[in-house]
Amino acid sequence: MGTGISFLGLGNMGNPMAHNLLKSGNKLFIYNRTKEKGAELIQEGAQWLNSPKEAFLHASIAFSIVSNDQALLAITEGNEGLLQNAKPGCIHISMSTISPELSRELAKKHSEKGVHYIASPVFGRPEAAVQQSLSICFAGKGEIRQQIEPLLHVLGKKIYDFGEDPGIANTVKLIGNFLLLSNIELMSEAFAFAKKSGISLDKIHTFLAETLFPFPIFQNYGRLIIDQNFTPGLKMTLGLKDINLFLHEANALNVPLPIANLLHERLLAGLANHREELDWSAISIIAMEEAGITS
Amino acid sequence: MGTGISFLGLGNMGNPMAHNLLKSGNKLFIYNRTKEKGAELIQEGAQWLNSPKEAFLHASIAFSIVSNDQALLAITEGNEGLLQNAKPGCIHISMSTISPELSRELAKKHSEKGVHYIASPVFGRPEAAVQQSLSICFAGKGEIRQQIEPLLHVLGKKIYDFGEDPGIANTVKLIGNFLLLSNIELMSEAFAFAKKSGISLDKIHTFLAETLFPFPIFQNYGRLIIDQNFTPGLKMTLGLKDINLFLHEANALNVPLPIANLLHERLLAGLANHREELDWSAISIIAMEEAGITS
Amino acid sequence: MGTGISFLGLGNMGNPMAHNLLKSGNKLFIYNRTKEKGAELIQEGAQWLNSPKEAFLHASIAFSIVSNDQALLAITEGNEGLLQNAKPGCIHISMSTISPELSRELAKKHSEKGVHYIASPVFGRPEAAVQQSLSICFAGKGEIRQQIEPLLHVLGKKIYDFGEDPGIANTVKLIGNFLLLSNIELMSEAFAFAKKSGISLDKIHTFLAETLFPFPIFQNYGRLIIDQNFTPGLKMTLGLKDINLFLHEANALNVPLPIANLLHERLLAGLANHREELDWSAISIIAMEEAGITS
Amino acid sequence: MGTGISFLGLGNMGNPMAHNLLKSGNKLFIYNRTKEKGAELIQEGAQWLNSPKEAFLHASIAFSIVSNDQALLAITEGNEGLLQNAKPGCIHISMSTISPELSRELAKKHSEKGVHYIASPVFGRPEAAVQQSLSICFAGKGEIRQQIEPLLHVLGKKIYDFGEDPGIANTVKLIGNFLLLSNIELMSEAFAFAKKSGISLDKIHTFLAETLFPFPIFQNYGRLIIDQNFTPGLKMTLGLKDINLFLHEANALNVPLPIANLLHERLLAGLANHREELDWSAISIIAMEEAGITS
Repeated sequence: MGTGISFLGLGNMGNPMAHNLLKSGNKLFIYNRTKEKGAELIQEGAQWLNSPKEAFLHASIAFSIVSNDQALLAITEGNEGLLQNAKPGCIHISMSTISPELSRELAKKHSEKGVHYIASPVFGRPEAAVQQSLSICFAGKGEIRQQIEPLLHVLGKKIYDFGEDPGIANTVKLIGNFLLLSNIELMSEAFAFAKKSGISLDKIHTFLAETLFPFPIFQNYGRLIIDQNFTPGLKMTLGLKDINLFLHEANALNVPLPIANLLHERLLAGLANHREELDWSAISIIAMEEAGITS
Repeated sequence: MGTGISFLGLGNMGNPMAHNLLKSGNKLFIYNRTKEKGAELIQEGAQWLNSPKEAFLHASIAFSIVSNDQALLAITEGNEGLLQNAKPGCIHISMSTISPELSRELAKKHSEKGVHYIASPVFGRPEAAVQQSLSICFAGKGEIRQQIEPLLHVLGKKIYDFGEDPGIANTVKLIGNFLLLSNIELMSEAFAFAKKSGISLDKIHTFLAETLFPFPIFQNYGRLIIDQNFTPGLKMTLGLKDINLFLHEANALNVPLPIANLLHERLLAGLANHREELDWSAISIIAMEEAGITS
Repeated sequence: MGTGISFLGLGNMGNPMAHNLLKSGNKLFIYNRTKEKGAELIQEGAQWLNSPKEAFLHASIAFSIVSNDQALLAITEGNEGLLQNAKPGCIHISMSTISPELSRELAKKHSEKGVHYIASPVFGRPEAAVQQSLSICFAGKGEIRQQIEPLLHVLGKKIYDFGEDPGIANTVKLIGNFLLLSNIELMSEAFAFAKKSGISLDKIHTFLAETLFPFPIFQNYGRLIIDQNFTPGLKMTLGLKDINLFLHEANALNVPLPIANLLHERLLAGLANHREELDWSAISIIAMEEAGITS
Repeated sequence: MGTGISFLGLGNMGNPMAHNLLKSGNKLFIYNRTKEKGAELIQEGAQWLNSPKEAFLHASIAFSIVSNDQALLAITEGNEGLLQNAKPGCIHISMSTISPELSRELAKKHSEKGVHYIASPVFGRPEAAVQQSLSICFAGKGEIRQQIEPLLHVLGKKIYDFGEDPGIANTVKLIGNFLLLSNIELMSEAFAFAKKSGISLDKIHTFLAETLFPFPIFQNYGRLIIDQNFTPGLKMTLGLKDINLFLHEANALNVPLPIANLLHERLLAGLANHREELDWSAISIIAMEEAGITS
């Protein structure tokens, strides 16, 4: 059990986070399904792991951030999984957006090996990851949370402790993403209406973003919607994954959620019409098209 | 035609606005359907008008802020209406939340008498009116807008010029209220889900209001929803009026608006269940009840 | 006051109805905004009226069936309206799909002149009008209902008496149309799902129409949707009119109606995308398109 | 491999179906999780099986009808499952409402043992099962379908062949249930509106059921809704299961289904408010309550 840190998953969120851990002076071991994504980090001094199972060979802390439940299971369990060589006392900080169920299940499996599991999903787009300005909510066993909190401050600006149950941190993440996507839909409807009313979208967006809705999601996503700039960001397929996780939980808890259902419809219509590679904010196209607006 | 200012409509928005105009040194003439509302202002030096038709006897500028299209028509037209004694060059600054249609129609009727009509709806709850921190969007004839803009700065902090067509300013107001009420519904669904997930509503509200959604509507309405503090503010009946105006416009423009329709359903259910005297944020009760949550 | 019957409004419903009245031996006077529509009837012996105001010159009973509230007002009131020459005891059988409000208001205005107003909206497509197989619900003053019921049996097969309040008959009509359009939407969603599941639409339509849903609306509209045969029938604009009347009533009564709102969205999207000349069943295109199905 | 027939699952649908098979002269072997349900059948000559694994000991054909995917797996697979003693050539006629996915998966597992799997879900309430008037759609391998079709005619009146892919038959069943539940919601909204309009529910139900909607679902469920007679029938929990299967498929196929989502919301609200033991038509309570109608 070494003193370094392992980082598994070098996508457009994980990559800048790994950079920040490296720059802040940690000995960093990295892994990704495709090695190219790690090239730059290796040049800067990170060491390559050939498999997730090497995560705890030289490090006692491993971060992971991958795209869904299946991908997390793939790097955690089995012969190649990070639990393979994990020793009691190791800590897995799991940052993926996954189901609360899986989080709880993994916490149990980790604890059977004496390994600690901290759920720690992150909020923010890749730019925020670069700028160490992510918001992070985390949950897991108390003394471990205290131990790793300083590392989270390397990655984000606002760090919130949600207690013992790791599933709660993942639930909070799902709620956050639901609200975020809802705002995209809201703006889409408002802008479709504004456009057909003859109002300049720039003007009303500026007005609203400076008065009633002065927050980055409204400001930035509003801009993207008006410019129809749908370079991802978060791809529509991932957005659908998140809403499905949210609705799955809601179904289990008997919570009817009409707006979440609407978002689900919008995302399905997006995929059915071949927009899977666009940013999830491309659901805005639907409200526009239904109003007869073609860009 | 005098140099004073008349102010018609002394409800919980109009009253503090009139106060601010008086305090800033204007000679103020006031009118309200029930005189009691004006008592304090009279004590501070305002002069009482016995009828809207006296608005332009001693003043060349009249503000009005009343509760709906009918009320505005009642103080504008007919033998008792403010147009009765209006002389060419007088200016009516109309701040009510009304239909864009009526706004355009009144602009035409005013102009037939040489009177100027400026639509100037305001955003903010009564506290913001007291603090002169309202947001105001206004529209109407160019040179008149320039002339009255300094007066708007007495009432609000953020003043936005939306051009020549007075209907546009009213449309912007309807869009703003739609987005505001949508946020109430969004929070209601999110909080119902959070509560059944076992998350402290205080905690998740704080988290969201400090990270992704750091804006007053989320902060303040979120608090009201959690505390189930539904003292109006804006009564549910007025909320329904606004959504109906919005949907009426959307119908005329062929814009399908699923979330606006949901809000309409929520408000109707609120009224059908005798909540008409509560703040419009009491629509949040429905998402809670449907999830089986009773406070 | 003569013994004939006047018939005002010779559209694709009114025309075959007038024919049936003529064929059953009545002396028939006809009026339509454009005279061409009456050519065939005139050849068969009907007499032309130059204005609605002549309706009660030679007849004591007048039927009317026009496209909306405005059109009905136009042929009823004013100098050219049928009330102009109506004498006490005359009967106006009003078959248009109009607002219950207007129906009640007209009943009152008729009664001030001693004229009887019977609301008697009809259900069925033009083919059913030809075949005298319409369904008709009617309401109005008791003894008058008895008197005119035989005439209704000339026009339709199933005649239902809804009592004294004429508005009720119009409300029933709005409910019927709501349910009918809902069935179109239901089939659209079901067929979009079936098609993407790889099921033959002919096969599942036959199955459902012969087992669970063995009724003409399902059978006939299902066929039209599958064949994408959107020749009107009832144009989308008239469908929107009906849903708007329904939602207007629902708003006044505080009844939240999520499916009616969905239908409203579908119709608006249809009009926004230039389908106003198609049959209202063309809303089915939307569920298909959202599922990525292009015919 | 015997010449008898086994029947697994003696709930309120399976029981009368087993009776009908027995009465038509078949040697019948029966199994149910709780034996009491089979008492009457045993008295009439059916023989009890101690485990599903005995299904193919004395019979070459086994019917099964249980409540969901899990229950079907439990009687099919493992040491106690019917596949345990199945010999090549045996036929499993699977009548449960389950996911198309499971149907396809089971077909494959059966075929690995040379056993034939026919999906054959049934439509109708328990009364229809008693009266041999069920509607049945079935799918599976061609020559086997021919072989078993006569047996289906013992159980139902309308039998439809949906071809080779067993999943299709299950998909058809899900579509049927979706449409059925949609009709319940439609009637609920229509009746809530009618009631607040002052229309007698009996009267409008009779009118609609005799004219536009003359089919048993409308007639019977309409009656149950008006009488608020929610004795199950199909319990709300089972209704939720079916809608979840439907939405799960729709999600996989990218088909947005707004009405299915609404039904899902209604069922969740029903369960959240402790109506899980009522018939699924009890979702009608929600439209009524939202309109402020308390029985």
